[in-house]
Amino acid sequence: MAASPLAPLLKAPPDAIAAAARRVMARCDELARVSAAPGRIERVYLSPEHARVNRLAAEWMRELGMTTWQDAAGNQVGRIEPVTAADGGALMLGSHLDTVLDAGRYDGIAGVLIALEVVRLLRVQTDAGWRVPLPFAIEVIAFSDEEGTRFGKALLGSSAAAGTWNDAWWTLTDAHGVSLRQAFLEFGLDPSRVGEAARRPEELVGYLEAHIEQGPELDRSAEPLAVVSSIASARRFQLVVEGEARHAGGTPYDMRRDALLGASEAALAVERVCAGEHHIIGTVGQFDAFPGAVNIIPGEVRFSLDLRGEYDGSRDRVWDELSRDLDAIMGRRGLRWSAREVHSAPAVFCAPLLQDVIRVGIRSTLPVRSDEPPVIFSRAGHDGMALGAITDVGMLFLRNPDGISHHPDEAVSAGDVAHGIRALAESVLHLAAEPR
Amino acid sequence: MAASPLAPLLKAPPDAIAAAARRVMARCDELARVSAAPGRIERVYLSPEHARVNRLAAEWMRELGMTTWQDAAGNQVGRIEPVTAADGGALMLGSHLDTVLDAGRYDGIAGVLIALEVVRLLRVQTDAGWRVPLPFAIEVIAFSDEEGTRFGKALLGSSAAAGTWNDAWWTLTDAHGVSLRQAFLEFGLDPSRVGEAARRPEELVGYLEAHIEQGPELDRSAEPLAVVSSIASARRFQLVVEGEARHAGGTPYDMRRDALLGASEAALAVERVCAGEHHIIGTVGQFDAFPGAVNIIPGEVRFSLDLRGEYDGSRDRVWDELSRDLDAIMGRRGLRWSAREVHSAPAVFCAPLLQDVIRVGIRSTLPVRSDEPPVIFSRAGHDGMALGAITDVGMLFLRNPDGISHHPDEAVSAGDVAHGIRALAESVLHLAAEPR
Repeated sequence: MAASPLAPLLKAPPDAIAAAARRVMARCDELARVSAAPGRIERVYLSPEHARVNRLAAEWMRELGMTTWQDAAGNQVGRIEPVTAADGGALMLGSHLDTVLDAGRYDGIAGVLIALEVVRLLRVQTDAGWRVPLPFAIEVIAFSDEEGTRFGKALLGSSAAAGTWNDAWWTLTDAHGVSLRQAFLEFGLDPSRVGEAARRPEELVGYLEAHIEQGPELDRSAEPLAVVSSIASARRFQLVVEGEARHAGGTPYDMRRDALLGASEAALAVERVCAGEHHIIGTVGQFDAFPGAVNIIPGEVRFSLDLRGEYDGSRDRVWDELSRDLDAIMGRRGLRWSAREVHSAPAVFCAPLLQDVIRVGIRSTLPVRSDEPPVIFSRAGHDGMALGAITDVGMLFLRNPDGISHHPDEAVSAGDVAHGIRALAESVLHLAAEPR
Repeated sequence: MAASPLAPLLKAPPDAIAAAARRVMARCDELARVSAAPGRIERVYLSPEHARVNRLAAEWMRELGMTTWQDAAGNQVGRIEPVTAADGGALMLGSHLDTVLDAGRYDGIAGVLIALEVVRLLRVQTDAGWRVPLPFAIEVIAFSDEEGTRFGKALLGSSAAAGTWNDAWWTLTDAHGVSLRQAFLEFGLDPSRVGEAARRPEELVGYLEAHIEQGPELDRSAEPLAVVSSIASARRFQLVVEGEARHAGGTPYDMRRDALLGASEAALAVERVCAGEHHIIGTVGQFDAFPGAVNIIPGEVRFSLDLRGEYDGSRDRVWDELSRDLDAIMGRRGLRWSAREVHSAPAVFCAPLLQDVIRVGIRSTLPVRSDEPPVIFSRAGHDGMALGAITDVGMLFLRNPDGISHHPDEAVSAGDVAHGIRALAESVLHLAAEPR
């Protein structure tokens, strides 16, 4: 590397970084109030709340002197040009602004706001307006759908930006039967133009994202930040177990084909099979029994399965073993089962160069700069999984107290956010210092 | 007994009974169309559909020369006086017109309509109008709530008639948050007058009900009708398992407190514990996981437990054992659990005299009249459980092909309905012939 990995490049007074961190925290609070559910946080793709947070983000981007646009898939983008006229493409920084149901206020959101503060710290005033003194432009992108809450398909926003949109998704429907196509139209987007959101690889230098960990490892090891080595391999399924709805009182055990008992065994099998493999986690999060009456044996259960692992191979091995277990369970109980795969993503490995600059960035925040920051793999999915199709991806994790995420108690400290802002700004500067 | 148990008392031509059975089948079809859900049968307490079927039933009662009224709890009653002026009280015949969700068309309904046909076969024209040539009046009652579908509490209609209404029920709410009190008002009933629905024991000779079996025993033994010996002892609980909602990807197994896995183990424990006792059945019919998102570990599961057994003792033993199992399961998983008992009913034993007259009534339909009809206990609950508090109860079961009930495929044959009409009419005549 051109610059000494131990020499900080960022010329910013600590109080500027502390103020930036306070701004991030306050804006997380402000965005948390943009919700479809009173007293809780709920902000799904193509909702009125999505439009409102895009407008807020665009305002904050313009306040930094960035050019802004909402792309053809509803992602909000801001761009600031380099001082040099040279077209070095753009380094993309960002994360997402959509949420799960009853969400916390930092997952995704903090990453977008940290990216804006990095722009604020790096930008310089020129005769032509605000610019960054780098060999590339910076774009901050607020992805519109990472969680997949509304249509059951994650990474819709970042897939559009990566040019990997699949036309089969148009007929996905939300809980109210609204199709993705219809939701586009209602939001004011033209489905036929979604391809225009796609970025070309040559336009991009890479993609860097700061994100809370959504797990306990940093908290357990008392480290504020980590380099992310890879993003988990994932598969998601919607499963259906079918038996027969019958009267609870009148039907003896030998005549029952109780879908709930079969699905209960299936949920426990997921736990057992995953626990038997290294670095694999399976979760049954949705579970609906029909008809759902006190005195009727459930005739059908629909449930979701979310599988994540460090490697695609072990993830697929778990699914194969589980499929055999389900055959046995359902066969014994006279039930039928079927599964529809609704999401599949291979493990995405962060680019070695971007891991390096993030490592250097994190070191600049450590009391002893030569210490090695932790390197962890992300069991949670991130927009980088989609972006990996067109550009190098790097990620920085911020400590998440007790690892609580997707929950109102999700937290991050202002101190760690300050570290994150400094580390990400340093990473960008070190990347700029690399020979290209 | 005064009359020979083998001598049929009913003077009705077979074609009158066949026509009566056809009318019952046609009216079951007609009532099935009164539903809150298109293409399915759903008719819950105090709904517009409840009002509509009450009006239909009242019309059919008046067509038979009966005096009609809707009581203070929404039960529809018709009464026909005896030819003698003597006040011998009333023999009550009936069942209920409310349904579960996505119901069949015979559970309860067939019993009300069979009772009307019994009145049609027995009634005689007198100068004072239609009368029954019996030492007591006949009342046909269509109970308004037996299933407990709407408020989670069964037997509301028959409890009102039995004078065992509990004021604690007023605050029960339906799925939309409407309280029982509010539903009374919206239906046009005065909650403060519900006590007026209560019947006094001295007004009643007894209560006889024909009902489909809701189980497979008669179908398995190729018998059309059975005498019911007792109605199951039942308890119902609403259980809550509480863990912690966390991000599915970020939370390793050792930090999970997954309410869904605890509740799944609980559902399987119900099966295991009940299967270890004689004549006990437990069913988990409702099962809701929260927040119910693909990528969030369920932090809470609410589920129902319906326990039924022939005897109160074994039923309570099962609950005690299950409670210990749940303590162990939830303790091991770091979960909390609680249960609220929402229904408890002791086993109700049918009155020996009424069992006798029903036995005689059934014999009149058998090819060999001296054959003993089957005697079975009802695992399903019935209005007689409430009525047992104030009068003798007798029940007659009709064969239910394959025992399918609480399901659109629920069935009964016109031939068995004809047997049921004849048997119930004979039972009434034999009861009338008893010395009083």
